[in-house]
Amino acid sequence: MSLSMYQASVPVFIHMLGNLSAILGKAAAYAETKKIAHPVLLGSRLAPDMLPLSAQIQIACDSAVRCASRLAGVDLPSNPDTETSIPEFQERIAKSIAFLKSVSAAQIDGSEERTVTLQMRTGEMKFQGQPFLLGFALPNFYFHLTTAYAILRHNGLDIGKADFLGKY
Amino acid sequence: MSLSMYQASVPVFIHMLGNLSAILGKAAAYAETKKIAHPVLLGSRLAPDMLPLSAQIQIACDSAVRCASRLAGVDLPSNPDTETSIPEFQERIAKSIAFLKSVSAAQIDGSEERTVTLQMRTGEMKFQGQPFLLGFALPNFYFHLTTAYAILRHNGLDIGKADFLGKY
Repeated sequence: MSLSMYQASVPVFIHMLGNLSAILGKAAAYAETKKIAHPVLLGSRLAPDMLPLSAQIQIACDSAVRCASRLAGVDLPSNPDTETSIPEFQERIAKSIAFLKSVSAAQIDGSEERTVTLQMRTGEMKFQGQPFLLGFALPNFYFHLTTAYAILRHNGLDIGKADFLGKY
Repeated sequence: MSLSMYQASVPVFIHMLGNLSAILGKAAAYAETKKIAHPVLLGSRLAPDMLPLSAQIQIACDSAVRCASRLAGVDLPSNPDTETSIPEFQERIAKSIAFLKSVSAAQIDGSEERTVTLQMRTGEMKFQGQPFLLGFALPNFYFHLTTAYAILRHNGLDIGKADFLGKY
């Protein structure tokens, strides 16, 4: 069976977001043990002008959800940024995974040349589906996922590559 | 044209490693301005039990090169870890890109079900080509690439998402 746009996107997002949720479960246990308030961990950054953990999780979710909705040509679901605790972020991840599961292979396969339009701060950008997935959506997703991991690791959470990659 | 194993791997690696080399160019200029010795930046970590920048760059290169060689079924090129300055790491990236350019689409396309065997610390692991690429090689590559970026960002280098993603 040859590689498809669906296989290269949706199942990858679901798997990696599941790993992030499990990492957040470890972060919640760590916060409990160390008496760290969730907003302290969630507000942590690697540099003062870099987004905090909360935003890294939000954007990881959104980049996956938006990629799938854009490739499938379905409406972007709304995800207001209202989370303030680790369980609320796990809930956001669960909702993102539920959305991803609602998108079928048939909706995404064949989207290699479908036009994808992004509204960026710098203006409108148009991509074809395949360069959008490989050159924008996947690197952007992994960027925020890894940064979330790195912020927690930097804050002393005992996690390793196996937590990031999950079971395969 | 439908997505292929080659397109989802080699051109992505080449593009992203080129971005990393450009980021290292900015790091060298920053080190020069701030009078920071290269080994100081290259030895920086986000946690004391996490690999330093030098290893993040080496593994990013190796994970790309090894993925391509394994999917193509060609011998793994040797890359001893001998770099001590930023230009030497840029040279390693250039060599990795040269290897990646030497692998053809014909060698990698159709590798979805090819058996890939990894020697891990925990023993031998066997994958099929597609789950190897999507569930191991790409997340591992992006993990080390983003961590390299994050270490430099944490050390004050003025870079942003546009440097990570590059031109697309």
